[in-house]
Parts: sequence; C-alpha cells; structure tokens
Amino acid sequence: MAKRIKDTTPKQDGYRMPGEFEKHKQCWIIWPERPDNWRFGAKPAQAAFVEVAKAISRFEPVTMVVSKSQYDNARYMLPDHIRVIEMSNDDAWMRDVGPTFLVNDQGGVRAVDWAFNAWGGLHDGLYFPWDQDDKMAQKICEIEEIDSYRTPDFVMEGGAIHVDGDGTLVVVEECLLSGGRNAHMSKDDMTEFLKEYLNVDKVIWLPRGIYNDETNGHVDNIFCFVKPGEVIIAWSDNENDPQYEISKEVYDHLCNETDAKGRKFKIHKLPVPSPPVTITAEESQGIDVIEGTLPREEGDRQAASYVNFYIANGGIVFPYFGNEKYDKIAEDMLKEIFPDREVVGVFAREVILGGGNIHCITQQQPLG
Amino acid sequence: MAKRIKDTTPKQDGYRMPGEFEKHKQCWIIWPERPDNWRFGAKPAQAAFVEVAKAISRFEPVTMVVSKSQYDNARYMLPDHIRVIEMSNDDAWMRDVGPTFLVNDQGGVRAVDWAFNAWGGLHDGLYFPWDQDDKMAQKICEIEEIDSYRTPDFVMEGGAIHVDGDGTLVVVEECLLSGGRNAHMSKDDMTEFLKEYLNVDKVIWLPRGIYNDETNGHVDNIFCFVKPGEVIIAWSDNENDPQYEISKEVYDHLCNETDAKGRKFKIHKLPVPSPPVTITAEESQGIDVIEGTLPREEGDRQAASYVNFYIANGGIVFPYFGNEKYDKIAEDMLKEIFPDREVVGVFAREVILGGGNIHCITQQQPLG
Repeated sequence: MAKRIKDTTPKQDGYRMPGEFEKHKQCWIIWPERPDNWRFGAKPAQAAFVEVAKAISRFEPVTMVVSKSQYDNARYMLPDHIRVIEMSNDDAWMRDVGPTFLVNDQGGVRAVDWAFNAWGGLHDGLYFPWDQDDKMAQKICEIEEIDSYRTPDFVMEGGAIHVDGDGTLVVVEECLLSGGRNAHMSKDDMTEFLKEYLNVDKVIWLPRGIYNDETNGHVDNIFCFVKPGEVIIAWSDNENDPQYEISKEVYDHLCNETDAKGRKFKIHKLPVPSPPVTITAEESQGIDVIEGTLPREEGDRQAASYVNFYIANGGIVFPYFGNEKYDKIAEDMLKEIFPDREVVGVFAREVILGGGNIHCITQQQPLG
Repeated sequence: MAKRIKDTTPKQDGYRMPGEFEKHKQCWIIWPERPDNWRFGAKPAQAAFVEVAKAISRFEPVTMVVSKSQYDNARYMLPDHIRVIEMSNDDAWMRDVGPTFLVNDQGGVRAVDWAFNAWGGLHDGLYFPWDQDDKMAQKICEIEEIDSYRTPDFVMEGGAIHVDGDGTLVVVEECLLSGGRNAHMSKDDMTEFLKEYLNVDKVIWLPRGIYNDETNGHVDNIFCFVKPGEVIIAWSDNENDPQYEISKEVYDHLCNETDAKGRKFKIHKLPVPSPPVTITAEESQGIDVIEGTLPREEGDRQAASYVNFYIANGGIVFPYFGNEKYDKIAEDMLKEIFPDREVVGVFAREVILGGGNIHCITQQQPLG
C-alpha cells in the first residue's frame, strides 16, 4: 500500500521531516555506473561505494539499488547483509533522487517525492535524460509501502535541504533561486511551499554553497545540523581561498540568526582540506566523453568538504581525501562534536570525482 | 539480509514447502509485455493480469513486478493497494521463475531458487535468453530479506511441483524426465534431490500432464491438492478427446497410491472445457514473429484447465474461458470443494493464449 496523497500537505497531516540524527530504519544508496561520470567504467567508484556501504552497515541496515545490468556485479561485490534491489537510474545520488522521508511521531512514515531534473533541467542540469532518477523516490516508497506527496511542479533535491527536526529548515539561495529549478516561484513562495511540505516554521536562507559546487551550491556540502541549535559549517582560514569569503558569509549569517524555537546557534567550523582537492592527471583519465556532461580535467578543483558526512545510528561516516593533516583535523573534530557516536572515515576521492560525497550518495529512512 | 545457503539442504535445516492452502503473506505476479507471446503489445493480457491481481488482492496483499519500460503503465493500471516493484524479466510466469518458499513452522521463511531455463533450455525451451527470469527468485528474496537455497545444476519450475505440506510431493514424469531439464539425473536421483529440497518423504510421479501443454506437462494444470489426502484432477468424459486417456491414467494412478502419511486420496474430477478452447482468428492476430518462439495460430488447441486456479487466504481465484456450461460446472464444483473459501472467477482467455493460467502467473509467499 503506497498511495499518492494529493489533497493535503505534510503540515496539514502532521508529518515532519526528522533530523538526520534521529533514529533510522535503514540507509539507501545507488550503485554507480555511468562511464561518462565515473572513470574506468565506474569500477574505482564502485569499490568506494562498497566501502561506504560497509561502513554504514556497521550501524544500520543498508539497501543498495542497482540497474539490471550491474545487478550481479553489485550483489557479488557487497557483503550478504547489504540488501540489493534492482532499480533503473540515471546516476548514483540517492540524497537527491530518493524520497525525503517524514514521520508523524506516532509510528507513521511518509515521504515527499520532489520533481527531479538533474540539478537544473535544460537550463543547467548535469545530464539528460533524468526520468529514471525522477522515478526512484516512488519506487522506493512502493517497496517500503510508504505513502508519498508528489510535487510535480516543484523541483527539489535532498541535498538542498537540512532540517533540525524541530521546526527549522536551512537552504541556500544560489541553489534554490537558480534558473533551472523553480524559476516560476519567488523566494517567498518557496519559503511557504517548503514550510508546508517539510512541516517547518522557519526557513533560513544561506547566501552561497561551497566553492565550485556542481549543484548550484547544495546546503549539505557547507552546513549541517548536529542537533537543534548546534551546527557545523565548512570553513577556510585562508583569505586567498575563494572559500574563505563564502564561509565567512555563512558564519556571519548564522551568528545573526535564531532557529524556529528562538535559539542562537552554536557553530563548529570544520576546515575544508588545504590545499584544495584537485583532479590528478591519473584521475582525469578513463571517462567517456558525452556531449553536455561536465569535463573532469587535471587540476580541476573539487568541492571537497568534510561536512558531507552521513549520520548513522550511533555512527558518523565521513569522507577523507588523503590530506593527512586535514583528514585528521576533521576526524578529531567530529569525534569531539559527536561524543556518543563512533566516527568512521572512508577514503572517498572517487566519490568526489563524480561530483559529491558520502552525504550526497546516501538517504536515511527514519524509523516510524 | 538474504543469504545464499550453500552447505545444507532444507530438509537438514527443518524447512518444508507448505501447501498452497496454508496461510500466505502475499502473492507475487509479473507484468506481461513480450510482444512475441502476448498479442497486440500485451495490452489485452495486461488488462487480464490486472483483473487477476485485483481478484487476489481481495484476499491477500499482491506485489506486481514489472520491467523498467512498463513500470509507469503498470503503476497506472493497478489500484494503489497493489505494490509495484521494478524487476527485469523475460516473460510473466511467476509460478515458474519465482522462489519456492519454505517455512520451518517456527516463524522462519526461506526459499529454493531453482535454476530456470525457459522449460527446456536449448533442447526445447520456449525462448532465449532466460537469464533475467532466472534471477528473479533471488531478487525477490533480497527484497523480502529471505535466505535461499540455490540449485545451480538442478532445473525446476514451481508449476512442476505440488505439495500437500505434509510430506507428499506430486510431479509429472513427462515433464521432469524431459530432455531439456535434468537429463544428467535419473528418476531416482531426482526423487532423492526433491525430497531434500522440499523436505518431503514421498514423491508421486504422475505419467503425463494436460494435453498439448507447452511445458512438457506441468503438474499444476492437471492436478492440485485441496488439503492433505484430498485432490482435484482435470477430467474429460469424452473418450474421443485425447485428454480422456491422460486423465484416466492420472486417476487410476492416484487410486492406487497413498500419500506420505499412508492416506488414500479423495479425488475430485474437474472437467476441462468442452469443446476444447482453441485460438480464434482474432486471437491469432497481433503477435510479433520471432525465430524460435511458438506460433499462435487459429484453431490451435489451448491447454485450458480449471485446475490452474490460485488458492488465496480465504479465497479461490479460478480462470474461466467463456464456455458457459463448463465455466459454471467449475465454479459450482470449486464452491463445493472449498466451502470455507470465497470462489471468484476471472475471464482468463488472454492468459491461456500466452501459454498458462492463473496458477502459472502467481506465486504465494507463506507467512512464517
């Protein structure tokens, strides 16, 4: 039983998006394969996704969805305890194409199934077509027998929203106001729409996302909630790095904000790796060239950020990049910020080469 | 968690195949689409499958699996309460390609995942390739998180076996001994193998299946269990019909048999439709011709049998063919034989045109 709810909104029905730090039933991930985004037939990326899935599965169940053609390979490469389900896809960003799950705090779970257009549609989207990705949220809801709210005229991705589960939503202006998503709506219209569909009372608009992000600046690469009233932002102390100004702007903005409950924010500054992660000559090889997809060239700066971690039940799974000093800073800070969770790092250069990181490739399904 | 169990057998582990009349969790069906087997792009067949699914869903949950390309159409044509899941397939015979589920009577459910080769492989199989069909049992077990026993060297289909859940298995010689399945094994070897994998004590071998069956005579078109000790067979009183001799043979065989517990059988004779169902001129149109698939020509006799019904929780869903007299006889007999179940008929000429019927397109998943 997985209905499409058409006449009401989550707010009307008493469903809210919980914070990622609330209890999960499981985590969903998509098996990567497109050879125009992942080098060498996606084999190095698949190995990295296996490591992410294994790390998360130490804390909660993981379901990997995979295309028909890669089913056997994924099943073989993953341990038995990770569930593998066939599902067509256009790429591997479950955060953005999966359902945004909701709870009603009485055991009920529902989801928002946003329209998805590959981060900008024909305006500045990253691939075409994107129809299989757009169907994934519904397919997952069918498998899990979860009713969903579909927003056919409202484009959104899970990576563009972060909530504290307590009335506050944080988004990024340059992302939500980009020309390829909901150009027919004003900022105020969007604020009202998001309040209805995520059941929040306040929407905080940060100005910009991480430097050089392909998604027009998803919030989940620059900001996240630790819990209500406590947040982490990506940071740079280097005034010559363009990230400095962006992070400073976010910091100043948050210092002058309160959340939906009137709390001031406790803000942790998690440094981005320095020097920035750039594509090596080797990493630039082995990618199919297809008209319209982004090039991956030697020296290109990657939007690498330690903020793009996943909060699992009792665990933190964060990406590291092979920069010994900054990897260590990130690990130590996360251990301090989350003293009750086990912090596990996964070497995730292959994931950032595809355009995102651990948070981007995962989607938590809360317990009802 | 869906493991492949390799070192033990169901008998060793205390798992048995339950009778179809035992309690189900749900029923699985595959959405039909191949245009070389189903006329007019499978649209009439899809409508018939919808009716079957709806009828069964009155009694128990139904999950329809469907290819990527037909997903939206199936989701649209089926009511909300029927779950729809993407799954690649080669055709629509869930009885034969789905898992054979097992229970241990302590809440545990497992499955046998038989090798499938399209009813005869390169010897006399009905299509090529069959690899997607062969993967379906595993995919369903993954979704349901059920451990399975894979038999890579033993070819079997769910339609070729009927059990009473109480130690007795009934199969058909002309089917199991056909050259395209397990020609490397003797009848005795197969008997022993099936005892291990279905956890039965006795295997009864009927000589032949229904007349003109494409599957080398699946048992489920000529015989089924009502409960332990009570069975139904397809019957003909017309000595000029080749079905007469086959049914008489089955009847005589069963009269001289006892089940695993030593019971004699109470045998109901359910008449096949007379005159036999043949393909009309109209029904022979609109089928893609592809080398190697069976022709569907006007006047061809169909293996139409009322025995090919599905036992649902509290219900019987049986096929009728538009032969008013015999349809009525079947309905009345089934009502008498199953006084505690509601008997529902579905007009199923479209299903028999594809080569099977309601039992062939369904697979029950027992409650643990």
